[in-house]
Amino acid sequence: MSSDIVNAESDQLTDELPAHQDPDSAFALHRGGKMAVRATVPVRNAEDLSLAYTPGVARVCAAIAGQPELVHDYTWKSQVVAVVTDGSAVLGLGDIGPEASLPVMEGKAILFKQFAGVDAVPIALDCRDPDELVETVARMAPSFGGINLEDISAPRCFEIERKLQARLDIPVFHDDQHGTAVVTLAALRNAVKLTGRRMADLRVVISGAGAAGAAIAKILVGAGAGEILACDRRGIVSPDRSDLTSAKQELAQLTNARGRSGSLADAMKGADVFIGVSGGTVPEEVVASMAPDAFVFAMANPDPEIRPEIARKYAAVVATGRSDFPNQINNVLAFPGIFAGALQVRASQISEGMKLAAAEALAAVVENELSPSLVIPSPFDERVAPAVAAAVAATARAEGLARR
Amino acid sequence: MSSDIVNAESDQLTDELPAHQDPDSAFALHRGGKMAVRATVPVRNAEDLSLAYTPGVARVCAAIAGQPELVHDYTWKSQVVAVVTDGSAVLGLGDIGPEASLPVMEGKAILFKQFAGVDAVPIALDCRDPDELVETVARMAPSFGGINLEDISAPRCFEIERKLQARLDIPVFHDDQHGTAVVTLAALRNAVKLTGRRMADLRVVISGAGAAGAAIAKILVGAGAGEILACDRRGIVSPDRSDLTSAKQELAQLTNARGRSGSLADAMKGADVFIGVSGGTVPEEVVASMAPDAFVFAMANPDPEIRPEIARKYAAVVATGRSDFPNQINNVLAFPGIFAGALQVRASQISEGMKLAAAEALAAVVENELSPSLVIPSPFDERVAPAVAAAVAATARAEGLARR
Repeated sequence: MSSDIVNAESDQLTDELPAHQDPDSAFALHRGGKMAVRATVPVRNAEDLSLAYTPGVARVCAAIAGQPELVHDYTWKSQVVAVVTDGSAVLGLGDIGPEASLPVMEGKAILFKQFAGVDAVPIALDCRDPDELVETVARMAPSFGGINLEDISAPRCFEIERKLQARLDIPVFHDDQHGTAVVTLAALRNAVKLTGRRMADLRVVISGAGAAGAAIAKILVGAGAGEILACDRRGIVSPDRSDLTSAKQELAQLTNARGRSGSLADAMKGADVFIGVSGGTVPEEVVASMAPDAFVFAMANPDPEIRPEIARKYAAVVATGRSDFPNQINNVLAFPGIFAGALQVRASQISEGMKLAAAEALAAVVENELSPSLVIPSPFDERVAPAVAAAVAATARAEGLARR
Repeated sequence: MSSDIVNAESDQLTDELPAHQDPDSAFALHRGGKMAVRATVPVRNAEDLSLAYTPGVARVCAAIAGQPELVHDYTWKSQVVAVVTDGSAVLGLGDIGPEASLPVMEGKAILFKQFAGVDAVPIALDCRDPDELVETVARMAPSFGGINLEDISAPRCFEIERKLQARLDIPVFHDDQHGTAVVTLAALRNAVKLTGRRMADLRVVISGAGAAGAAIAKILVGAGAGEILACDRRGIVSPDRSDLTSAKQELAQLTNARGRSGSLADAMKGADVFIGVSGGTVPEEVVASMAPDAFVFAMANPDPEIRPEIARKYAAVVATGRSDFPNQINNVLAFPGIFAGALQVRASQISEGMKLAAAEALAAVVENELSPSLVIPSPFDERVAPAVAAAVAATARAEGLARR
């Protein structure tokens, strides 16, 4: 019996494999889209209709008009997130516009649903000016319990998120920044624990000073990392550079406490941690110049900045963004649970404290199973989303950001 | 047998009553909202994720970026409608704002799904200026295959719909106008057929010159009705009045070919058809002054302008907006099938011809069963949506408005 089951599974896998190797399989899967809506109440007859629609619905509307917070109880608002993009920085594809970004937004929406039961709706906007984008999202905000910003180019994404959160009383969360940062921090926590080090002793180099890099730097500062150097294509982001955008000027203030300057290779000499969110390639001799037992998180997709087999020659812990190597840094470990927790308590925002709590909870899921090839849970570890949601909800309450 | 059926129906009515009288049943049903999203593709393991999300999704995005019309094939765009409101004219409640309107928009969304398999998403906007509303909806249009405008106050709704349709290449349809107009015309077609009259011989009085009244007037002109008089609270809408908004000036040009003026009661003397979309009450003596064998469509909810038991004393056919009387004029007979047909052929708009075709198809569903108490199908007649969709799709193709 048991071998029958194994054989059946093998057959299934064999059937699946060609699909992955065939570039058309993604198209076949995407035909007609990847999501649908469904009614959660019956509409089979006149009685149903008289409750779910007129005249019964009018009583519910009138009640909300009189007591606005009831919208959370009697509509799907508090369980639905808008996945908002302008299509300006989609995956590795760059600025492909709103329509072409929709498959990613639908993918994100179904991940919200599958991993944490959160409903989500793709909203791809034909709109580029940051203030217009803010205005547009703010106008549609009554319909949603949270806003997940996605694939919006830096530095516009910083301004858009900041202005939207200032204006709205629901969470606004740019996943490319904070989702990546939360998962990176969780992996780093566990790597530190595994190797018996202290966060405060680490010298961290972040290659990439865009959305993800800036957010990782910020969360690592909050987590007490020792020294952080962010690098862009021109080298270490330092206050003495004259070519920095205002976002990078802020990053220079936040990081680089000793005012270092130089190339990425300069930064990596003796560094304990490499975090790659930039693409590009780091030569082996530069990897070799890192401190002993370094951590290499080479997260560029599909080509890590440092190949894992090279990284392993010098590093104690290696992580990538890919599913076919150990320690996949995947945002799906963060955003579903973070929004689930925030929505559960009707949080008004997702604070730095809530992000740190999410990272702690995510790290804790595997803290008793740690090994060099397991510092972060698998994306399909079912313990993750509930643990992250609980930590985020508790922290929102503790910080006074919860409305229930 | 016949009396058994009558008794069964009576029992059913009795069963319905407590639900309507118990204010809590609608609230209980609405708790947590009435809808959810679901994934239509599996996301159970890394292989699934690599197709539905990265890296597989990138190939689909790149294909759409290169060939934009592929968005219809590989996303849910062409099967999802935005149900858009600003909450300015919600049911009989008036201007209750976006949040309080959400239960109606959710209700509409699930009716789209249940009656025609069309996905729909409630978008309640915090936005009142017509141009800003147009701009907002236009920006989010890349995500949707159609825009159903809902419960937006007149005369703003006319301008908003016109400007949006001019700007977008997807259907924009204000259901309060056109849904009502289509179903009204269908009922009128069948009443004409049942009584052996001709549309061109009818003198029609429309009580109500707002969104629904104006759209009914327009579709009846298209359908060849003889004389049409629209009345607002001040009486017949006529070119000699100095108090008309520009929308009503247009209505005065479109209707009232003989340049009549006077009160609603004046208009109704000798009229063949009364169509009420205004609320208010018409005195019995005014009903009595209509032509013999008139048609009374008193559609105000919950209180028809003319009580059916009064209307029946003078009229050959009586219809209302209520489910507990025969001949319910219910928009759900129109909008699901209309959008399903338009989406099926990726129509760029819903033309007057498509609306007329929808009305014809709706009327035809019961044309072989006609009686004074059956001039329009039941909302739960499963033949309706497919028939309407097929007619709308065929007309879009014939008019060159279809993209497939």
